[in-house]
Amino acid sequence: MNKIKVGIVGYGNLGRGVEMSIQQNADMELVAIFTRRQPADIQSAVEMVHISKIDTYIGKIDVMILCGGSATDLPEQGPYIASMFHTVDSFDNHGKIPQYFDAVEASAKKSGHASVISTGWDPGLFSLNRLLAEVVLPEGKEYTFWGKGVSQGHSDAIRRIQGVKNAVQYTIPNDDAVNKVRNGEDPVLTTRDKHLRECYVVAEAGEDLSRIEKEITTMPNYFADYETVVHFISAEELQEKHASMPHGGLVLRSGKTGVNSKQIIEFGLNLDSNPEFTGSVLVAYARAIHKFAAEGFVGAKTVFDIPYGYLSPKSAEQLRKELL
Amino acid sequence: MNKIKVGIVGYGNLGRGVEMSIQQNADMELVAIFTRRQPADIQSAVEMVHISKIDTYIGKIDVMILCGGSATDLPEQGPYIASMFHTVDSFDNHGKIPQYFDAVEASAKKSGHASVISTGWDPGLFSLNRLLAEVVLPEGKEYTFWGKGVSQGHSDAIRRIQGVKNAVQYTIPNDDAVNKVRNGEDPVLTTRDKHLRECYVVAEAGEDLSRIEKEITTMPNYFADYETVVHFISAEELQEKHASMPHGGLVLRSGKTGVNSKQIIEFGLNLDSNPEFTGSVLVAYARAIHKFAAEGFVGAKTVFDIPYGYLSPKSAEQLRKELL
Repeated sequence: MNKIKVGIVGYGNLGRGVEMSIQQNADMELVAIFTRRQPADIQSAVEMVHISKIDTYIGKIDVMILCGGSATDLPEQGPYIASMFHTVDSFDNHGKIPQYFDAVEASAKKSGHASVISTGWDPGLFSLNRLLAEVVLPEGKEYTFWGKGVSQGHSDAIRRIQGVKNAVQYTIPNDDAVNKVRNGEDPVLTTRDKHLRECYVVAEAGEDLSRIEKEITTMPNYFADYETVVHFISAEELQEKHASMPHGGLVLRSGKTGVNSKQIIEFGLNLDSNPEFTGSVLVAYARAIHKFAAEGFVGAKTVFDIPYGYLSPKSAEQLRKELL
Repeated sequence: MNKIKVGIVGYGNLGRGVEMSIQQNADMELVAIFTRRQPADIQSAVEMVHISKIDTYIGKIDVMILCGGSATDLPEQGPYIASMFHTVDSFDNHGKIPQYFDAVEASAKKSGHASVISTGWDPGLFSLNRLLAEVVLPEGKEYTFWGKGVSQGHSDAIRRIQGVKNAVQYTIPNDDAVNKVRNGEDPVLTTRDKHLRECYVVAEAGEDLSRIEKEITTMPNYFADYETVVHFISAEELQEKHASMPHGGLVLRSGKTGVNSKQIIEFGLNLDSNPEFTGSVLVAYARAIHKFAAEGFVGAKTVFDIPYGYLSPKSAEQLRKELL
């Protein structure tokens, strides 16, 4: 069997997570990593290429896994790279997904490629479980809890504020709220009731900290609806105390069927490394979009459009026998 | 919008669960229920029809939801009814799924219909989560725990033994084993370590109880690999103490990514009513197979072949906006 030839665009935490995941999947081959930095400055066992030369890899790479941030990288890179390759990404700005989907789809259709957007675990696996629980228990309430852990998307959004040198954002679920849902109490919970967002920020020297804090706490989609606490710390303290990237969370739905039967569906993740896990999800969806492209599909998909069988290297027959 | 016209074949616990679920789904309409019993003897708000007249409903029903047992009903009814209608079932004899799939597929292809087999929660939602966890964490261990609860498939299998009047089977997970997995200890657990199967059996008068007990504990696929305890009790005690049908369970995968990051994926159900929940899953897959049939698909599918988006009455655009 020919291996699926993969490229990585963007070599931050997520890009390294994807690189490690490809080593666990025997049907995949990492051809090159594309970066905006000077390729010669980056240590890697794999060919490192400046992003300006990405078009020279047309025909040499099947699927590009886009590992840039959702705030500014992907809105530009997604449609651009879909004009040359099949793509997978983890675009996670929930409010802007419809317009991002349309932009990637238009580009992929024009060039004859296949793309899947917004994979990862939220959006991604959590979205799938919200959908599943809603269709099975149409009369019910859904609760998503995140953390405790680092949100890359939110940390990235803070880092893009002018005057911010580095930042780590922790999302922390409220335990009492989780237990009420598990007990079937169907509590009414606002976004603020469910989580706290705690931000550790390193500012450039001489910046107005109150201006940065205000830009964070009022940022739409990311922070404006949450109880947000901002701590300004030194670069050394950030490195020492906030370098690991655990995460996790729960999607719960509590519903009723028949006369009064309580039914609870729960999906949970407990992750030592968020970028390595997200990278592993991206790699599985790279396999899926490669299969769809091989069948002639052109355009964009989301996780909702992809059967789980497409994620696996096993045949449908083998899956029926081994896993059903 | 035209409603999806549904029929139910078999009016036991699962059939009643499907009937109740259809009432929660505004895009569905229950046309008739088909039974082997005398239709006039059964109370129902819906048209009750003897199964011998099922062919007179060709053209009047879009999807038949098959609610018979997997031991003897479905192997016969699945292929037969797929020769006349689109079908959904919850065939749950894991070891015989490949041959059942082939039989239903052959019939559906010959008649131009679409079928989805082995939906419900195990096989079904649990299978999906086993597959997902395996592809995202290829280096890891998977653990499925069932219960505490009644397994309809196993109870049904006991009831088909000669001399058995009625039976209820509880599957009970071992709490210590569950906690070891959640803590990331990756224990080695045999099937017997994980569960106990407890059977409450009402025998016909004068039967050889030790023969019945032996037929239960040695039954392949269902009991032979498990620690199985059989209690013979009166019909009155069974009715009084074992009439409700709770169930639940967990699919856990503990895996590693990168150098040594522990990652845990968990999917769990906590169900007051197993047949009502299973019925709700069947109804969602009835919607999905109806969509596939409308697109021209002919043949058989499993849950692995069906994107979650097909389960929902919402459009792909609406799902991207609301649930991704």
